[in-house]
Amino acid sequence: MLPRGDTVVWAERGGPAVTNLPATGYMNLADIEAAARAVVPPPQWDYIAGGAADETTLAENSAAYRRIRLRPRVLRDVAQRDLTTTVLGEPIAFPVLLAPVSPLSLACPQAELLAARAAAQAGVRMIAPTQGAHTIHELAAQATAPLWFQLYPSCNRAVTEALIDQAQAAGCTALVVTLSAFYASFRERDRRSGYSVPAELWAANLLHLPGVRPDDPDFDRVLPITWADLAWIRARTTLPLVLKGIMTAEDAELAVEQGIAGLIVSNHGGRQLDGTLPTIEALPEVVEGAAGRCEVYLDGGIRRGTDVLKALALGARAVCIGRPYVWGLAWNGEAGVLRVLEQLRSELDSAMAQMGRRTIADLDR
Amino acid sequence: MLPRGDTVVWAERGGPAVTNLPATGYMNLADIEAAARAVVPPPQWDYIAGGAADETTLAENSAAYRRIRLRPRVLRDVAQRDLTTTVLGEPIAFPVLLAPVSPLSLACPQAELLAARAAAQAGVRMIAPTQGAHTIHELAAQATAPLWFQLYPSCNRAVTEALIDQAQAAGCTALVVTLSAFYASFRERDRRSGYSVPAELWAANLLHLPGVRPDDPDFDRVLPITWADLAWIRARTTLPLVLKGIMTAEDAELAVEQGIAGLIVSNHGGRQLDGTLPTIEALPEVVEGAAGRCEVYLDGGIRRGTDVLKALALGARAVCIGRPYVWGLAWNGEAGVLRVLEQLRSELDSAMAQMGRRTIADLDR
Amino acid sequence: MLPRGDTVVWAERGGPAVTNLPATGYMNLADIEAAARAVVPPPQWDYIAGGAADETTLAENSAAYRRIRLRPRVLRDVAQRDLTTTVLGEPIAFPVLLAPVSPLSLACPQAELLAARAAAQAGVRMIAPTQGAHTIHELAAQATAPLWFQLYPSCNRAVTEALIDQAQAAGCTALVVTLSAFYASFRERDRRSGYSVPAELWAANLLHLPGVRPDDPDFDRVLPITWADLAWIRARTTLPLVLKGIMTAEDAELAVEQGIAGLIVSNHGGRQLDGTLPTIEALPEVVEGAAGRCEVYLDGGIRRGTDVLKALALGARAVCIGRPYVWGLAWNGEAGVLRVLEQLRSELDSAMAQMGRRTIADLDR
Amino acid sequence: MLPRGDTVVWAERGGPAVTNLPATGYMNLADIEAAARAVVPPPQWDYIAGGAADETTLAENSAAYRRIRLRPRVLRDVAQRDLTTTVLGEPIAFPVLLAPVSPLSLACPQAELLAARAAAQAGVRMIAPTQGAHTIHELAAQATAPLWFQLYPSCNRAVTEALIDQAQAAGCTALVVTLSAFYASFRERDRRSGYSVPAELWAANLLHLPGVRPDDPDFDRVLPITWADLAWIRARTTLPLVLKGIMTAEDAELAVEQGIAGLIVSNHGGRQLDGTLPTIEALPEVVEGAAGRCEVYLDGGIRRGTDVLKALALGARAVCIGRPYVWGLAWNGEAGVLRVLEQLRSELDSAMAQMGRRTIADLDR
Repeated sequence: MLPRGDTVVWAERGGPAVTNLPATGYMNLADIEAAARAVVPPPQWDYIAGGAADETTLAENSAAYRRIRLRPRVLRDVAQRDLTTTVLGEPIAFPVLLAPVSPLSLACPQAELLAARAAAQAGVRMIAPTQGAHTIHELAAQATAPLWFQLYPSCNRAVTEALIDQAQAAGCTALVVTLSAFYASFRERDRRSGYSVPAELWAANLLHLPGVRPDDPDFDRVLPITWADLAWIRARTTLPLVLKGIMTAEDAELAVEQGIAGLIVSNHGGRQLDGTLPTIEALPEVVEGAAGRCEVYLDGGIRRGTDVLKALALGARAVCIGRPYVWGLAWNGEAGVLRVLEQLRSELDSAMAQMGRRTIADLDR
Repeated sequence: MLPRGDTVVWAERGGPAVTNLPATGYMNLADIEAAARAVVPPPQWDYIAGGAADETTLAENSAAYRRIRLRPRVLRDVAQRDLTTTVLGEPIAFPVLLAPVSPLSLACPQAELLAARAAAQAGVRMIAPTQGAHTIHELAAQATAPLWFQLYPSCNRAVTEALIDQAQAAGCTALVVTLSAFYASFRERDRRSGYSVPAELWAANLLHLPGVRPDDPDFDRVLPITWADLAWIRARTTLPLVLKGIMTAEDAELAVEQGIAGLIVSNHGGRQLDGTLPTIEALPEVVEGAAGRCEVYLDGGIRRGTDVLKALALGARAVCIGRPYVWGLAWNGEAGVLRVLEQLRSELDSAMAQMGRRTIADLDR
Repeated sequence: MLPRGDTVVWAERGGPAVTNLPATGYMNLADIEAAARAVVPPPQWDYIAGGAADETTLAENSAAYRRIRLRPRVLRDVAQRDLTTTVLGEPIAFPVLLAPVSPLSLACPQAELLAARAAAQAGVRMIAPTQGAHTIHELAAQATAPLWFQLYPSCNRAVTEALIDQAQAAGCTALVVTLSAFYASFRERDRRSGYSVPAELWAANLLHLPGVRPDDPDFDRVLPITWADLAWIRARTTLPLVLKGIMTAEDAELAVEQGIAGLIVSNHGGRQLDGTLPTIEALPEVVEGAAGRCEVYLDGGIRRGTDVLKALALGARAVCIGRPYVWGLAWNGEAGVLRVLEQLRSELDSAMAQMGRRTIADLDR
Repeated sequence: MLPRGDTVVWAERGGPAVTNLPATGYMNLADIEAAARAVVPPPQWDYIAGGAADETTLAENSAAYRRIRLRPRVLRDVAQRDLTTTVLGEPIAFPVLLAPVSPLSLACPQAELLAARAAAQAGVRMIAPTQGAHTIHELAAQATAPLWFQLYPSCNRAVTEALIDQAQAAGCTALVVTLSAFYASFRERDRRSGYSVPAELWAANLLHLPGVRPDDPDFDRVLPITWADLAWIRARTTLPLVLKGIMTAEDAELAVEQGIAGLIVSNHGGRQLDGTLPTIEALPEVVEGAAGRCEVYLDGGIRRGTDVLKALALGARAVCIGRPYVWGLAWNGEAGVLRVLEQLRSELDSAMAQMGRRTIADLDR
């Protein structure tokens, strides 16, 4: 009797539609996590899900968002929201990036390729990992958008140089240097299970570097990088550098002085040092240290669109997700990643509207 | 042997009676909730009980009261308490209002009519919903006291005008504009159950508006209202306006400047945006923003007379209850609503006496 | 081979003995509570154990002590401790009083008499209740030490006068006016069980007042007392007055101005108004309000000797226990009360030694 | 195909190895605790594991570390860490000491000897207990490194003098006077079990003192020591004195004035007075009181390398472990103690690297 269209009407207590998600078969990120867990064998699941030692930082990364309270504004014109933003000057559809995860192929075959395609299709940026089952060229061939390349520098500089060259040749537009995993950590789930990632899941880039051979010295040793090494990398490339693993204002200031373009507040998803601040609580001081002279991102614990909104309101330009898109891959491949991204986008859009903010730039403390 | 009257004597450690409740078959609001749950089918129950996303705001709305501690005063003359007060100048028996709930008829048939009668009988005010199974005229015919009318403005101004006209014609004495539900939210219980409220439970007012037809453009679309729209509404009616959904001092100040008569601190019962402040924690800043220039009410989480007292002590003129009276309806219809109201009144009266306060005006921080 | 005497030797890591408790069959107050629960029927147990409404204050009264941390001092000469102190100038063996509990005979027959004897034997003061199964004269006949008398004033002044006269005639040395239970509360356990205390358990004093008859007006109605009534009581007796139920600095100051000799910080064991401060958190402001011009005691939640020590350190002159000695009575009559008192005394003595305090006067913040 | 050596390579996300622990059969301290519990009979286990009264301090000693958050620094040259430090000028391999535990032989036969050997082998210091199944000479004969001697002074000064003489003759390099256990405590597990440590497990030193006989007066009575007694001890020996059980800045200052060389912040592992501050929360004020004029150590609750790091960052020069090495002994004797020490060392080394600290001296707040 009453007209029922695709848009939200009175019976649903809404105004303009803020979601493209189906009403039936609804799944939030926790549901997708459960679906993924059902298909990944326990040792691999533990490798993905686990954190260091007592996993308190792992738990805190998410829990800390629940201690931040929202103050919604009303009666503003937010009928049409605009979630687009830029990262390092590159436009993206909404402020979520795919963090580098190694090895992604624990989730499903060809995981890197599927994730690269999903990111491009959703209009967001993927940070392609050094360590995976496919080379950066293979990923770039699948993606219809530029990739950023995560760099684990090697103790052998020739390896590092070759990695940088490959990334540039593949069209990557930024190098993300991971700082938070140079030292072995106490990931007790893995130590108990004895699970060790097979080479075919992580060594593709390394095995296909021109001029590099497995019997070269330090061929596969990650460099415990210092500021001096970083200066050398910076001199070696024209790509903007992003540092992943900055947790203090002091290091943010040092990075700015070195001409770094972006910082990712990260504790490596709680996988390295148990007991650090959750990233959302370290974010404000890093933003203060950066003082607008470089962009600041965050990863760790994002499970809801309101988490994204809270990070942006506290000064992040965008957030990275890790485990959630691995769950999407394990559950449903490329479509699963798209579903995870759309869920976050929809939730963020709804939260923006209800906070009375029309654009990403409107978000403040 | 000893005289035992209806009043409280030594054996019960009391002075003057503060309750009309029976000693046996005692039920507090949690008991009535349990009784209601036993008779409402799960999808409808979830629609009533559920909140947005992880339901943290839903839980916090109630939990926050337990963090507020009372400092009782003694030896004052509080033998006779006076719980009467006024809202927008209208006298009420005690400072509790029935919040607009849509659709109330999930609880039982003719729920709006029963609630309207119970409110009038108890001497409190009901805020009649835009969306229900009965028109505002039908509610007004049952109530022996004036109603306030909750207004969801329409994208079609003719619809809005007709709604306002009907409310005035039915003798409503205030318009309560709901601000907190213009955008679809993530009420996951409903998304999972697929429950959709049938039109006969929510569209009565809409289908009986003179001069409005279901095929008019935007007939059933709620307007995402702005300050400009509000100014238009204000110019359109002589009724005092109340805004439901103010959560910040800034918006309270803007509302006062627009000549608004009352503000309801509300996060829509935790049903819209998960992660907002609980209403009792937002109340102080809204009271400060209003600065005595308009009345401030609160809804969300009230389950005890001491919760009412805490809200009044923090500056609320009255509180609104939602789910509790729906439980009363589901359990026992009109009598159930009366029982819920009497329980809160009795608990408030007891709390007033034990705090050493004789009148509502005596309550302070 | 090695000498093992009654005193503590190296094997037990101690110096001078601080306990007379047997090593076997050890029971702390929680054990005695469990033993009592095993013998008291549920409705009576609920009457004793229950609190008002959601029982949050009941729980907080005890839990609050766990948030107070001790800073022990070392290397002081505390080989011999002295736990004696005075209340209203009367010497007691250690700073614990038996709070007035009505009706005590829920625990066991002749409970008032047994408690009065135990208190006298342990060298502490009992506050004899207005309401019990025995008259104040019967209690006084059993006790080898003076009693204090708890006064619930009556709406009929002749009754109040007669009660005061009887207390004085029985040799009581102070009147404790209870302020925290003039109004009926929401003790939901009792409302559900329908348990009502029979007259023979509470009305002994009332039925044996000379010149008072059960058909006198207001014979059994407790007076909701005011400052004016209190002034009348003060003029009516030469006994020092103690007020039970002071929770604020403001009321403490008013009491001092009225010449009150002592204040008991009390929320009636969480039985009257749910949501008040726990007593140990209200104590500091009452001590500040009293400013040394009258003595301050505390009741509610004491379960360990360290709880006593914390209250004394925060300014209490002594503490009152209620439920713990009822447990002692139910478990083992007079010996049970002595056991409860000795447990607290021993724990307090041990705590004093380990805090480096030799006397009660040495305790400070 | 890829070279896999003993060092950490890319697949394990690490740089230089920070651990010598085997990847399989991994055990953290909680695992070793569980293994120990499986072999120790309940009464003895309770004696080891239990604390005073409600065991809140016992639990808090560990829980308090989880409330301290780490702020890691990055990009520093920490490829090679140096965990060596000194205590009272004596070099140790890493800043962990074995606390005096009595009687250690509850864990296994010859426990003192095994622990002394393990400590020497691991390059750390053991504080040998007064009370054990072996004399200090027997321990010294096993250890390839100096011991410190814990002194429980006796009420009989001849006994105390003989104990000091024996410790010096055995080559001990410091006397650790325990202050926190002069008075019997409420260790309720032991009071319930009735467990009493047999003399052969604790009295070896006492029974082998030259010139002392069991029928001497006060032969086996521990002295409740005062500052005056301490001055006497200090005059009696040339060994540096360490006080175990300092919990306040005031006592730290007094100790410094007496020329004490070191302070151990300790609440006796939560075994004496329930309700004290956890040691990690008392540490800062003791460090402040010492003001660099003597060394400050800490014991209680250390279960992770990050706990050690937090204590060092807050000013401790080293930490003592008690129960953890008892677990090691019970589980696997000398090798078990070595395993416990290596686990803590490895975790500390990893935490140092990830905090960007190369040496112990680099640790700060």
